[in-house]
Amino acid sequence: MSEPMHGAAAGAAASSSSDPAARGAKPLIASDRVEGTAVYDPTGNRLGSVRTLMIDKVAGTVEYAVLSFGGFLGLGASSYPLPWKKLRYDIGLGGYVVDVTEAQLANAPSFSADKPVDWSDADWGERVRDHYGPSPYGSRDGL
Amino acid sequence: MSEPMHGAAAGAAASSSSDPAARGAKPLIASDRVEGTAVYDPTGNRLGSVRTLMIDKVAGTVEYAVLSFGGFLGLGASSYPLPWKKLRYDIGLGGYVVDVTEAQLANAPSFSADKPVDWSDADWGERVRDHYGPSPYGSRDGL
Repeated sequence: MSEPMHGAAAGAAASSSSDPAARGAKPLIASDRVEGTAVYDPTGNRLGSVRTLMIDKVAGTVEYAVLSFGGFLGLGASSYPLPWKKLRYDIGLGGYVVDVTEAQLANAPSFSADKPVDWSDADWGERVRDHYGPSPYGSRDGL
Repeated sequence: MSEPMHGAAAGAAASSSSDPAARGAKPLIASDRVEGTAVYDPTGNRLGSVRTLMIDKVAGTVEYAVLSFGGFLGLGASSYPLPWKKLRYDIGLGGYVVDVTEAQLANAPSFSADKPVDWSDADWGERVRDHYGPSPYGSRDGL
Protein backbone atom coordinates (compact mmCIF):
# COMPACT_ATOMS: atom_id res chain seq x y z
CA MET A 1 0.00 0.00 0.00
CA SER A 2 1.71 3.12 -1.14
CA GLU A 3 -0.44 5.97 -2.30
CA PRO A 4 -3.86 6.12 -0.66
CA MET A 5 -3.17 9.65 0.50
CA HIS A 6 -5.57 12.01 2.11
CA GLY A 7 -5.35 15.70 1.55
CA ALA A 8 -4.54 15.61 -2.15
CA ALA A 9 -0.83 16.07 -2.68
CA ALA A 10 -1.80 18.74 -5.13
CA GLY A 11 1.73 20.03 -5.47
CA ALA A 12 2.52 23.35 -7.01
CA ALA A 13 -0.26 25.42 -8.51
CA ALA A 14 1.04 24.45 -11.90
CA SER A 15 -1.03 25.62 -14.80
CA SER A 16 0.15 22.60 -16.73
CA SER A 17 -2.76 20.57 -18.03
CA SER A 18 -0.83 17.44 -17.13
CA ASP A 19 -1.53 18.11 -13.45
CA PRO A 20 -4.52 15.85 -12.66
CA ALA A 21 -5.76 18.11 -9.84
CA ALA A 22 -5.73 21.15 -12.08
CA ARG A 23 -7.85 19.25 -14.56
CA GLY A 24 -10.45 18.41 -11.96
CA ALA A 25 -9.41 14.82 -11.25
CA LYS A 26 -10.50 13.61 -7.85
CA PRO A 27 -8.19 11.64 -5.59
CA LEU A 28 -10.09 8.37 -5.35
CA ILE A 29 -9.57 5.28 -3.25
CA ALA A 30 -11.46 1.98 -3.17
CA SER A 31 -13.46 1.22 -0.04
CA ASP A 32 -12.07 -2.31 0.15
CA ARG A 33 -8.60 -0.83 0.18
CA VAL A 34 -9.42 1.43 3.13
CA GLU A 35 -10.88 -1.53 5.03
CA GLY A 36 -8.13 -3.27 6.93
CA THR A 37 -5.76 -0.31 6.85
CA ALA A 38 -3.98 0.37 10.15
CA VAL A 39 -4.81 3.42 12.26
CA TYR A 40 -2.25 5.15 14.47
CA ASP A 41 -2.35 7.89 17.08
CA PRO A 42 -0.19 11.01 16.55
CA THR A 43 2.78 9.39 18.32
CA GLY A 44 2.78 6.43 15.93
CA ASN A 45 1.13 4.05 18.40
CA ARG A 46 -1.06 1.56 16.56
CA LEU A 47 -4.68 1.89 17.70
CA GLY A 48 -6.29 -0.71 15.44
CA SER A 49 -7.52 -0.90 11.89
CA VAL A 50 -10.42 0.29 9.78
CA ARG A 51 -13.12 -2.38 9.74
CA THR A 52 -15.62 -0.64 7.52
CA LEU A 53 -16.95 2.76 6.47
CA MET A 54 -20.37 4.10 7.37
CA ILE A 55 -21.91 5.78 4.35
CA ASP A 56 -24.86 8.14 4.18
CA LYS A 57 -26.93 6.31 1.56
CA VAL A 58 -28.80 9.37 0.35
CA ALA A 59 -26.07 12.01 0.36
CA GLY A 60 -23.39 9.53 -0.68
CA THR A 61 -20.96 10.81 1.93
CA VAL A 62 -18.63 8.82 4.15
CA GLU A 63 -19.60 9.71 7.71
CA TYR A 64 -17.42 7.41 9.79
CA ALA A 65 -14.51 5.05 9.55
CA VAL A 66 -15.24 2.27 12.01
CA LEU A 67 -12.07 1.49 13.92
CA SER A 68 -11.78 -2.01 15.32
CA PHE A 69 -9.29 -3.30 17.82
CA GLY A 70 -8.92 -5.86 20.55
CA GLY A 71 -10.64 -9.21 20.75
CA PHE A 72 -9.60 -12.62 19.55
CA LEU A 73 -10.70 -13.53 16.03
CA GLY A 74 -13.19 -10.71 16.27
CA LEU A 75 -14.74 -12.05 19.47
CA GLY A 76 -15.20 -9.35 22.04
CA ALA A 77 -13.74 -6.76 19.73
CA SER A 78 -15.14 -3.27 20.12
CA SER A 79 -15.77 -0.92 17.22
CA TYR A 80 -15.28 2.81 17.38
CA PRO A 81 -16.70 5.11 14.73
CA LEU A 82 -14.39 8.01 13.93
CA PRO A 83 -15.47 10.96 11.80
CA TRP A 84 -13.94 10.42 8.35
CA LYS A 85 -12.40 13.89 8.38
CA LYS A 86 -10.27 12.82 11.35
CA LEU A 87 -8.28 10.42 9.17
CA ARG A 88 -5.09 11.49 7.45
CA TYR A 89 -2.99 9.04 5.49
CA ASP A 90 0.67 8.78 6.47
CA ILE A 91 2.87 7.29 3.78
CA GLY A 92 5.69 6.54 6.21
CA LEU A 93 3.48 4.56 8.57
CA GLY A 94 1.46 3.04 5.74
CA GLY A 95 -1.75 3.79 7.57
CA TYR A 96 -4.06 6.47 8.85
CA VAL A 97 -3.12 8.82 11.65
CA VAL A 98 -5.90 10.22 13.80
CA ASP A 99 -5.59 13.06 16.25
CA VAL A 100 -6.98 10.84 18.99
CA THR A 101 -5.19 9.26 21.92
CA GLU A 102 -5.80 5.76 23.25
CA ALA A 103 -7.16 7.35 26.43
CA GLN A 104 -9.61 9.41 24.42
CA LEU A 105 -10.75 6.26 22.67
CA ALA A 106 -11.28 4.46 25.96
CA ASN A 107 -14.38 6.48 26.78
CA ALA A 108 -15.46 7.12 23.21
CA PRO A 109 -18.80 5.87 21.86
CA SER A 110 -18.36 2.28 20.77
CA PHE A 111 -20.32 -0.82 19.94
CA SER A 112 -19.77 -4.56 19.79
CA ALA A 113 -21.62 -7.79 19.12
CA ASP A 114 -22.89 -7.69 22.70
CA LYS A 115 -23.71 -4.02 22.52
CA PRO A 116 -25.10 -3.28 19.04
CA VAL A 117 -25.74 0.26 17.88
CA ASP A 118 -28.84 1.76 16.35
CA TRP A 119 -27.39 3.85 13.53
CA SER A 120 -30.76 5.48 12.96
CA ASP A 121 -30.56 7.00 16.45
CA ALA A 122 -29.70 10.68 15.95
CA ASP A 123 -28.47 10.97 19.55
CA TRP A 124 -25.83 8.33 18.87
CA GLY A 125 -24.44 10.26 15.90
CA GLU A 126 -24.43 13.44 17.95
CA ARG A 127 -22.49 11.74 20.74
CA VAL A 128 -19.86 10.53 18.27
CA ARG A 129 -19.47 13.96 16.68
CA ASP A 130 -19.38 15.68 20.05
CA HIS A 131 -16.75 13.31 21.39
CA TYR A 132 -14.32 14.12 18.60
CA GLY A 133 -15.61 17.57 17.80
CA PRO A 134 -14.20 21.00 18.54
CA SER A 135 -15.63 20.95 22.06
CA PRO A 136 -12.88 19.97 24.54
CA TYR A 137 -14.99 17.25 26.15
CA GLY A 138 -17.59 14.96 24.71
CA SER A 139 -20.11 15.43 27.50
CA ARG A 140 -23.46 14.98 25.86
CA ASP A 141 -23.83 11.34 26.84
CA GLY A 142 -27.37 10.66 27.90
CA LEU A 143 -28.69 13.82 26.32
CA MET B 1 -29.86 -8.45 3.80
CA SER B 2 -33.06 -6.59 4.41
CA GLU B 3 -32.88 -2.86 4.89
CA PRO B 4 -29.97 -1.15 3.12
CA MET B 5 -32.37 1.17 1.36
CA HIS B 6 -31.50 4.11 -0.77
CA GLY B 7 -33.67 7.15 -0.91
CA ALA B 8 -34.55 7.33 2.79
CA ALA B 9 -37.95 5.84 3.43
CA ALA B 10 -38.63 9.05 5.24
CA GLY B 11 -42.32 8.34 5.50
CA ALA B 12 -44.81 11.00 6.39
CA ALA B 13 -43.61 14.46 7.30
CA ALA B 14 -44.43 13.62 10.88
CA SER B 15 -43.49 16.23 13.42
CA SER B 16 -43.09 13.44 15.96
CA SER B 17 -39.65 13.51 17.56
CA SER B 18 -39.59 9.71 17.38
CA ASP B 19 -39.08 9.93 13.61
CA PRO B 20 -35.32 9.48 13.14
CA ALA B 21 -35.27 11.51 9.93
CA ALA B 22 -37.05 14.42 11.59
CA ARG B 23 -34.39 14.38 14.29
CA GLY B 24 -31.57 14.55 11.77
CA ALA B 25 -30.55 10.91 11.79
CA LYS B 26 -28.79 9.87 8.62
CA PRO B 27 -29.58 6.61 6.85
CA LEU B 28 -26.22 4.87 7.07
CA ILE B 29 -24.89 1.66 5.60
CA ALA B 30 -21.54 -0.08 6.00
CA SER B 31 -19.29 -0.18 2.96
CA ASP B 32 -18.57 -3.88 3.47
CA ARG B 33 -22.28 -4.52 3.34
CA VAL B 34 -22.64 -2.74 0.01
CA GLU B 35 -19.73 -4.73 -1.39
CA GLY B 36 -21.02 -7.99 -2.82
CA THR B 37 -24.62 -6.80 -3.14
CA ALA B 38 -26.32 -7.78 -6.41
CA VAL B 39 -27.12 -5.17 -9.06
CA TYR B 40 -30.10 -5.50 -11.40
CA ASP B 41 -31.35 -3.64 -14.45
CA PRO B 42 -34.86 -2.12 -14.36
CA THR B 43 -36.42 -5.36 -15.66
CA GLY B 44 -34.94 -7.37 -12.80
CA ASN B 45 -32.17 -8.89 -14.90
CA ARG B 46 -29.08 -9.46 -12.75
CA LEU B 47 -26.16 -7.46 -14.12
CA GLY B 48 -23.52 -8.35 -11.55
CA SER B 49 -22.55 -7.22 -8.08
CA VAL B 50 -20.84 -4.33 -6.36
CA ARG B 51 -17.15 -5.09 -6.01
CA THR B 52 -16.07 -1.91 -4.25
CA LEU B 53 -16.82 1.79 -3.90
CA MET B 54 -14.60 4.56 -5.19
CA ILE B 55 -14.36 7.31 -2.60
CA ASP B 56 -13.13 10.86 -2.98
CA LYS B 57 -10.53 10.92 -0.21
CA VAL B 58 -10.65 14.65 0.35
CA ALA B 59 -14.36 15.38 0.01
CA GLY B 60 -15.36 12.06 1.60
CA THR B 61 -17.96 11.39 -1.07
CA VAL B 62 -18.76 8.11 -2.78
CA GLU B 63 -18.23 8.72 -6.47
CA TYR B 64 -18.74 5.29 -7.99
CA ALA B 65 -19.94 1.82 -7.19
CA VAL B 66 -17.73 -0.52 -9.17
CA LEU B 67 -19.88 -3.21 -10.75
CA SER B 68 -18.18 -6.48 -11.49
CA PHE B 69 -19.47 -9.32 -13.59
CA GLY B 70 -18.31 -12.13 -15.81
CA GLY B 71 -15.07 -14.00 -15.59
CA PHE B 72 -14.18 -17.20 -13.76
CA LEU B 73 -12.93 -16.74 -10.20
CA GLY B 74 -12.28 -13.13 -11.04
CA LEU B 75 -10.13 -14.00 -14.05
CA GLY B 76 -11.07 -11.92 -17.04
CA ALA B 77 -13.77 -10.13 -15.09
CA SER B 78 -14.43 -6.57 -16.16
CA SER B 79 -15.31 -3.79 -13.76
CA TYR B 80 -17.71 -0.98 -14.54
CA PRO B 81 -17.87 2.14 -12.40
CA LEU B 82 -21.41 3.44 -12.00
CA PRO B 83 -22.18 6.83 -10.48
CA TRP B 84 -23.35 6.19 -6.90
CA LYS B 85 -26.49 8.22 -7.46
CA LYS B 86 -27.59 5.67 -10.07
CA LEU B 87 -28.08 3.00 -7.41
CA ARG B 88 -31.43 2.49 -5.75
CA TYR B 89 -31.99 -0.32 -3.28
CA ASP B 90 -34.90 -2.67 -4.01
CA ILE B 91 -36.10 -4.60 -0.98
CA GLY B 92 -37.97 -7.16 -3.08
CA LEU B 93 -34.92 -8.02 -5.17
CA GLY B 94 -32.54 -7.71 -2.25
CA GLY B 95 -30.14 -5.69 -4.35
CA TYR B 96 -29.56 -2.46 -6.19
CA VAL B 97 -31.46 -1.51 -9.31
CA VAL B 98 -29.76 0.75 -11.81
CA ASP B 99 -31.41 2.51 -14.69
CA VAL B 100 -28.91 0.94 -17.06
CA THR B 101 -29.43 -1.83 -19.58
CA GLU B 102 -27.01 -4.65 -20.31
CA ALA B 103 -26.55 -3.17 -23.77
CA GLN B 104 -25.68 0.22 -22.30
CA LEU B 105 -23.12 -1.49 -20.08
CA ALA B 106 -21.58 -3.28 -23.04
CA ASN B 107 -19.98 -0.11 -24.36
CA ALA B 108 -19.56 1.63 -21.02
CA PRO B 109 -16.15 2.64 -19.68
CA SER B 110 -14.66 -0.38 -17.93
CA PHE B 111 -11.38 -1.76 -16.69
CA SER B 112 -9.87 -5.11 -15.84
CA ALA B 113 -6.61 -6.67 -14.71
CA ASP B 114 -5.43 -6.55 -18.33
CA LYS B 115 -6.72 -3.04 -18.83
CA PRO B 116 -6.09 -1.07 -15.62
CA VAL B 117 -7.50 2.38 -15.14
CA ASP B 118 -5.75 5.55 -14.05
CA TRP B 119 -8.23 6.98 -11.56
CA SER B 120 -6.28 10.23 -11.47
CA ASP B 121 -7.08 10.77 -15.15
CA ALA B 122 -9.80 13.43 -15.25
CA ASP B 123 -10.81 12.39 -18.77
CA TRP B 124 -11.66 8.92 -17.51
CA GLY B 125 -14.02 10.31 -14.85
CA GLU B 126 -15.62 12.57 -17.42
CA ARG B 127 -16.22 9.64 -19.77
CA VAL B 128 -17.92 7.68 -16.99
CA ARG B 129 -20.15 10.57 -15.99
CA ASP B 130 -20.99 11.36 -19.61
CA HIS B 131 -21.87 7.76 -20.36
CA TYR B 132 -24.50 7.60 -17.64
CA GLY B 133 -25.26 11.30 -17.53
CA PRO B 134 -28.31 13.23 -18.70
CA SER B 135 -27.04 13.25 -22.28
CA PRO B 136 -28.75 10.46 -24.26
CA TYR B 137 -25.50 9.03 -25.54
CA GLY B 138 -22.08 8.83 -23.95
CA SER B 139 -20.11 9.91 -26.95
CA ARG B 140 -17.06 11.61 -25.55
CA ASP B 141 -14.84 8.56 -25.86
CA GLY B 142 -11.46 9.60 -27.10
CA LEU B 143 -12.01 13.21 -26.18
